[in-house]
Amino acid sequence: MTDYTQILVNKADGVATITLNRPDKMNAYTRTMGSEIMTAMDDIDADDEVRAVIFTGAGERAFCAGADLTPEGGGHVFSDPTEVDDLSDPTVRDGGGLLTLRLFESKKPLISACNGVAVGVGATMQLAMDIRLASETARFGFVFARRGIVPEAASSWFLPRIVGISQALEWCYSGRVFSAQEAKDGGLIRSVHSPQVLLNEARALAQEIAQNTSAVSVAMTRAMMWRLMSADHPMEAHKIDSRAIYRLSRGADAKEGIASFLEKRPPQYPAKVSEDMPDFYPWWDERPYE
Amino acid sequence: MTDYTQILVNKADGVATITLNRPDKMNAYTRTMGSEIMTAMDDIDADDEVRAVIFTGAGERAFCAGADLTPEGGGHVFSDPTEVDDLSDPTVRDGGGLLTLRLFESKKPLISACNGVAVGVGATMQLAMDIRLASETARFGFVFARRGIVPEAASSWFLPRIVGISQALEWCYSGRVFSAQEAKDGGLIRSVHSPQVLLNEARALAQEIAQNTSAVSVAMTRAMMWRLMSADHPMEAHKIDSRAIYRLSRGADAKEGIASFLEKRPPQYPAKVSEDMPDFYPWWDERPYE
Amino acid sequence: MTDYTQILVNKADGVATITLNRPDKMNAYTRTMGSEIMTAMDDIDADDEVRAVIFTGAGERAFCAGADLTPEGGGHVFSDPTEVDDLSDPTVRDGGGLLTLRLFESKKPLISACNGVAVGVGATMQLAMDIRLASETARFGFVFARRGIVPEAASSWFLPRIVGISQALEWCYSGRVFSAQEAKDGGLIRSVHSPQVLLNEARALAQEIAQNTSAVSVAMTRAMMWRLMSADHPMEAHKIDSRAIYRLSRGADAKEGIASFLEKRPPQYPAKVSEDMPDFYPWWDERPYE
Repeated sequence: MTDYTQILVNKADGVATITLNRPDKMNAYTRTMGSEIMTAMDDIDADDEVRAVIFTGAGERAFCAGADLTPEGGGHVFSDPTEVDDLSDPTVRDGGGLLTLRLFESKKPLISACNGVAVGVGATMQLAMDIRLASETARFGFVFARRGIVPEAASSWFLPRIVGISQALEWCYSGRVFSAQEAKDGGLIRSVHSPQVLLNEARALAQEIAQNTSAVSVAMTRAMMWRLMSADHPMEAHKIDSRAIYRLSRGADAKEGIASFLEKRPPQYPAKVSEDMPDFYPWWDERPYE
Repeated sequence: MTDYTQILVNKADGVATITLNRPDKMNAYTRTMGSEIMTAMDDIDADDEVRAVIFTGAGERAFCAGADLTPEGGGHVFSDPTEVDDLSDPTVRDGGGLLTLRLFESKKPLISACNGVAVGVGATMQLAMDIRLASETARFGFVFARRGIVPEAASSWFLPRIVGISQALEWCYSGRVFSAQEAKDGGLIRSVHSPQVLLNEARALAQEIAQNTSAVSVAMTRAMMWRLMSADHPMEAHKIDSRAIYRLSRGADAKEGIASFLEKRPPQYPAKVSEDMPDFYPWWDERPYE
Repeated sequence: MTDYTQILVNKADGVATITLNRPDKMNAYTRTMGSEIMTAMDDIDADDEVRAVIFTGAGERAFCAGADLTPEGGGHVFSDPTEVDDLSDPTVRDGGGLLTLRLFESKKPLISACNGVAVGVGATMQLAMDIRLASETARFGFVFARRGIVPEAASSWFLPRIVGISQALEWCYSGRVFSAQEAKDGGLIRSVHSPQVLLNEARALAQEIAQNTSAVSVAMTRAMMWRLMSADHPMEAHKIDSRAIYRLSRGADAKEGIASFLEKRPPQYPAKVSEDMPDFYPWWDERPYE
């Protein structure tokens, strides 16, 4: 069991909950927090008991109030005294992007339960999650232009895909902080809930996946959707679909899926993400940072 | 006239209607049905009298209840006893994808009038259609993860383009069956209608196109939108636009478009898709399956 | 100061307003008008006093009623007597596309205040703007298929990104003219206003940007969002993010952003777009017309 200092990880009933846990600092993001989330994701991806992941923040005020700009934040780029000229130097890499690129690789569905303030990287880290729920008390802000910097964490790739280019630009140009309802109207979040029921709603969604679906099917679906939606032609999706339908339809989960459906009983899928992904997975090469 | 066994094809007033016609099987999809739709599309694309295509299902219960998994379904991959190791083998190809890739090539607008249950390939085949209308009695389901398989028919390319990545993932992760209203709220369908008026609404939309527009303009528009929206730069669209505006603005339909507009009368466009597409059409190479 | 004949350019309080100014012709588009807008954009991009741009139309009836098809329109392609065979000839280039490609390069946010009829190029030129507001009296039309031509101005790239492929196709297939409310419901515009307040609403949005944000941050954000959203992998955004966060977080605007935030006072960002863009900007090569 890993000892985390800035997050909590709870696993129950097939669902892992990662809680950003610096409530006295409004869960402000540090490189340590980022590193701990990435470690937790490695653990979760390898744990076949975990079928979905929920992210939330400790306390009643904040999901994550952005990057911790104090020295305590731990070597944040703002206070870094060194300088490099070669911008391909790996030390230049944006910490928020390292996190969202790791979330992009996740084999489990990622659900945000945004319980309060989410600005800066507190907002952009959620863009790499699959489904976002928020409390009525949540507030969002892509505040970068009010800090003299730019949207990070690969949000120029993620945000327009989620809310469209015009809404993405308006929020990032103005840098204003906005309500959960505006986030819902603009397509950033799926639904708004009272603070009392937010986590229960997120858990119900996670449980629906855990109790009814094949883990291998879900892991494949996640990779296929995120990676093939940007292809320049549907043939690229067809190539992967064909291999996946061919292999999976001959597998144990397909047999159980049909049998449980015909017998009108809950399914018990035997296949494991750790062992039973199809032989052509992953079908992509790692994308290098250059 | 082709003899179809699992679909009906009706042509009237410039509109072809393809009816999936196995009502006692809830119009479950078979390879025969897929093959017949593709044959009908070849016929329709070559028929200058047809200006738009409507797809619907026979009977009151279903549009299409997914792939027919019984032996009667005809050599479905689930029951195929053979095995191949080379996944680039053409026999591996997903049948739903062969259909949606054919629809992708259509020269005529495709309108879905979804009159009932549409799950599995019954839902995904509609993603390659341009405009989706549904009855209040329609129900949709991307149920693949509940069957131990994955979304097919190139839906990882089509679905996020239509409903966004988050909604696409939620429907595919859960595999749940959902209502026409949820489909409308999520952006999957354009409008919900009573069963009595569904087909009339679809026909009105098809007729508006047939009576007011140039067939060559519409065929070009379809190819341009579906193929250029994924380009990495608007210059790629500008290259095709420039050629198209140059050629078409000197053509007979442009003359008739201007003349009928100035004379405030219905247009009679002379150009035919079968003969009068601009000389640079198609401007793309076939995308091979490899 | 340039002498414009078909547009007006006003600059005040950090906002430039470009008014299409042929009110007796419903501000119909000519090559002269396009050329004047492009000249004005060059001036605006070089003027550090201008932080945002508003586009509107003179008079109460129209934003822009499309291309002026009369001889007065000035060498419009419809009336061009010459013919070329080589469609890569630069004289073939679509005028609407030359304009939208120039808008695509803008370093300032572009806001449309659509005050009336906007059809043909009057609608498509707005697609390259970032945020669209409209009057209750506005009407839109992608009427090309009713004129025997096709959507131009790279709208097959822009329009599906803004409203989705299905809505884009329905509007372009039918060619019908539709209301501001339908434009709002379909995602084409952000908000509908009474004619009396339209420009004030647009100015308020522009002022919010001008008064609160770093000009360099906004120029970078514009380039990043429009150019990186179409990348095939979020790593491409991460590469630019990393360089931008590294350089800008060490710059004068970041210092002022943090200081003004901590001191709870309005910011006074010193950096200029004309001089202080990061050293790796632009990071892309020009896309040639071939």
